[in-house]
Amino acid sequence: MADTIEINPISGFPEWLPNLRLQEERFIDTIRKQYQLFGFTPIETAAVERFNVLTAKTAMQRQIFTLGRPEEGEGEESDLGLHFDLTVPLARYVVQNAEKLVFPFRRYQIQKVWRGERKQRSRFREFYQCDIDVVGRSTLDPIHDAEIPCVINATFEALKLPDFQVQISNRKILGDLIRVAQPDPEQLTKALRAIDKSDRNEVEKTREALAAEGVDARVIPAVLDLTRCDSVAEARKILQTAGAQTGGLDELQAVMESAIALGMPEARLRLNFAIARGLDYYTGTIYETFLVGKEDWGSICSGGRYDDLASFFTTQKYPGVGISIGLTRLFNLLVQSGLVDVSRQAPTQVLVTMQNRAAYLKEYLALARLLRERGIATEVFLEPAGLRGQFGYASSKGIPLAVVAGETEIGQGVVTVKDMRVGKQEIVARDALPDYVLKKLSG
Amino acid sequence: MADTIEINPISGFPEWLPNLRLQEERFIDTIRKQYQLFGFTPIETAAVERFNVLTAKTAMQRQIFTLGRPEEGEGEESDLGLHFDLTVPLARYVVQNAEKLVFPFRRYQIQKVWRGERKQRSRFREFYQCDIDVVGRSTLDPIHDAEIPCVINATFEALKLPDFQVQISNRKILGDLIRVAQPDPEQLTKALRAIDKSDRNEVEKTREALAAEGVDARVIPAVLDLTRCDSVAEARKILQTAGAQTGGLDELQAVMESAIALGMPEARLRLNFAIARGLDYYTGTIYETFLVGKEDWGSICSGGRYDDLASFFTTQKYPGVGISIGLTRLFNLLVQSGLVDVSRQAPTQVLVTMQNRAAYLKEYLALARLLRERGIATEVFLEPAGLRGQFGYASSKGIPLAVVAGETEIGQGVVTVKDMRVGKQEIVARDALPDYVLKKLSG
Repeated sequence: MADTIEINPISGFPEWLPNLRLQEERFIDTIRKQYQLFGFTPIETAAVERFNVLTAKTAMQRQIFTLGRPEEGEGEESDLGLHFDLTVPLARYVVQNAEKLVFPFRRYQIQKVWRGERKQRSRFREFYQCDIDVVGRSTLDPIHDAEIPCVINATFEALKLPDFQVQISNRKILGDLIRVAQPDPEQLTKALRAIDKSDRNEVEKTREALAAEGVDARVIPAVLDLTRCDSVAEARKILQTAGAQTGGLDELQAVMESAIALGMPEARLRLNFAIARGLDYYTGTIYETFLVGKEDWGSICSGGRYDDLASFFTTQKYPGVGISIGLTRLFNLLVQSGLVDVSRQAPTQVLVTMQNRAAYLKEYLALARLLRERGIATEVFLEPAGLRGQFGYASSKGIPLAVVAGETEIGQGVVTVKDMRVGKQEIVARDALPDYVLKKLSG
Repeated sequence: MADTIEINPISGFPEWLPNLRLQEERFIDTIRKQYQLFGFTPIETAAVERFNVLTAKTAMQRQIFTLGRPEEGEGEESDLGLHFDLTVPLARYVVQNAEKLVFPFRRYQIQKVWRGERKQRSRFREFYQCDIDVVGRSTLDPIHDAEIPCVINATFEALKLPDFQVQISNRKILGDLIRVAQPDPEQLTKALRAIDKSDRNEVEKTREALAAEGVDARVIPAVLDLTRCDSVAEARKILQTAGAQTGGLDELQAVMESAIALGMPEARLRLNFAIARGLDYYTGTIYETFLVGKEDWGSICSGGRYDDLASFFTTQKYPGVGISIGLTRLFNLLVQSGLVDVSRQAPTQVLVTMQNRAAYLKEYLALARLLRERGIATEVFLEPAGLRGQFGYASSKGIPLAVVAGETEIGQGVVTVKDMRVGKQEIVARDALPDYVLKKLSG
């Protein structure tokens, strides 16, 4: 026999054991269901894009995995890379299919993305993003910005996570303030960078960061006041005192009011002028989402409003608003914190055990059919083993119910159902089995 | 403004418009649901494997996409490639996690795979595979082979495709026959290759192919008889006349009988000794599935029994049985044949239209919440537009129902529901709306 090949895990490419993958699938299904309830439609783009498309907008070159073909030399493949987010593919898809899409185009997209992170950073190099965007052609009503927090709320509520808070701001507000001193658009980028890097509670450090970035000294005090304030009224005072316009603030106020009218719980929506979002790309409303008590995890769902999705591919304007859940990172943090149910190794709800297979195989198989017809995930234990071994199998897989039927039971038209979770058993009429099981599972 | 980047589609990487992706998702959900009903548990492996793992078993080197990093030079990435199927990753995963899995390990895996096909062949280079396998440690009872056709049957029935047939054979039978003349194991491979290449109805050509491959002339007549025969009794006569053992045939007969006991409809299970399956890998039962009337599409779901899943990674034996649906290819053929519903652009079931937003926005938003709480996918039309434009939006997206509420309706506590599919409308009490909608949608 040839030598066997050693298996070495590849860092940054996470894989879950079945009990975790079962839960990850549940997360994805739940997210998808909520996105659909709000009328978002699915798209999926190829994992692969042309290199010039991937690099059109960003400085992500270093993080792109390119494709090659070992025996083909420099072929077309050297021009291809794996997508690193779902926004660039969305922009390309919208432009490519613009004549066939209905606008506003509401899409969700749940796919893996790949980033060539350095090993040292111990970040994921393959992970799921779960995105929604509403994209208009030429225009998009600002009320769409108000719907997004409601989708976030419905989604995280459905995931049954610890309580959470959507923090909201609007890029224009800081822009309005800075423009009082300097009309240079670079000033906003610099201020955002400084705020992004520092903690809103460390006023002195933020002041230094703003100064270090070269933000005009005349507006620094007002910027600092703004990042620490948490009401519209207070913000309005700060802007008015500084002599700044309040267009951005008016917009934010309208978005928050509409969000609450749309059903967003007030306690879960919080103004925070200190959120900045890394990307230049956003031009209006911005969102970050935090689990209460787990703020150190950073934002688990972020996004915002942008004026122009696809400026690199077309002169047609596509304004939009969207968010992204970095699912793999969130899921991993929840697992590490013991917040994910790890008890089930399979979706199986019932194990039909076997005794005297030669005599009763057909009966066992018929029981399984009876259950599956009612949508109950059922396994028949098909290996040779005693009852004890079969119960052991059910326990180790976390299967909640086991059905036992020996000669006596079969003769009487009944089965014994053992609840593996509590170790108790009951006798049930064969024909009543599916209803009994459904009740047991829902109870 | 900078020049825009031209977008060129990449051949072999399919993407669907929303109406098709909606259906592809439905296909995947349906397949997954059936796999779960039989107690298969989900796993997902990274898209990326080490090159030596990918190439351990096969001559697929040429079809592997390797990864690179443009600015990193020859790093670890040059050792990585995208998986080209889900069997190699399964083998690696089972060996890597053997101590943490429960055997028999029943897993499903629905993921994209990538193959560096030459452009000229116009095959997909990125596509979905939907696999199930049952993997034993050391042993696996043959009755598992009988369950597989039942899973195929349940899955294709649930997909509501045209009628289909699972063709079944067992590699050992041909082996038993050939061994009469020649104990050389290469003879079986040669015979399989010849049968694979030729049409069972063209006896002369198959005869020539067998001779050309160097199959022993003494068994060629019996091989030809076998490939054309379609009953166990007839096959038994051929084997006995040739003086061959019948162990493989006995096994196949038992598998077919058990499959029928498990609920496989007899008319959908057909013996076919001419199916060969490309891969060496299978050692017992083999399956191919054909849509009736679309046999020219080739097999849409294939698989079989193997003695040893992971011989390249471990000396521990892992026998198993499994199948794979090449979903992207099947889905594309169904679309091309007009067999996929393309009428809906979104999962949205109800569009809540708006009039006089300033006065009634809250009422419209509340209607949407009422519907979503009952699981009804609902959009509110948030752009400025007249009723006619809003109905046009509903029509072009294939949204079945539109809710209209003007001043009169709101005053009376009712809404008008327009069924976009037939153009008729009815007045419904506001509180009765969710029940009315659910009934309309199920009717």
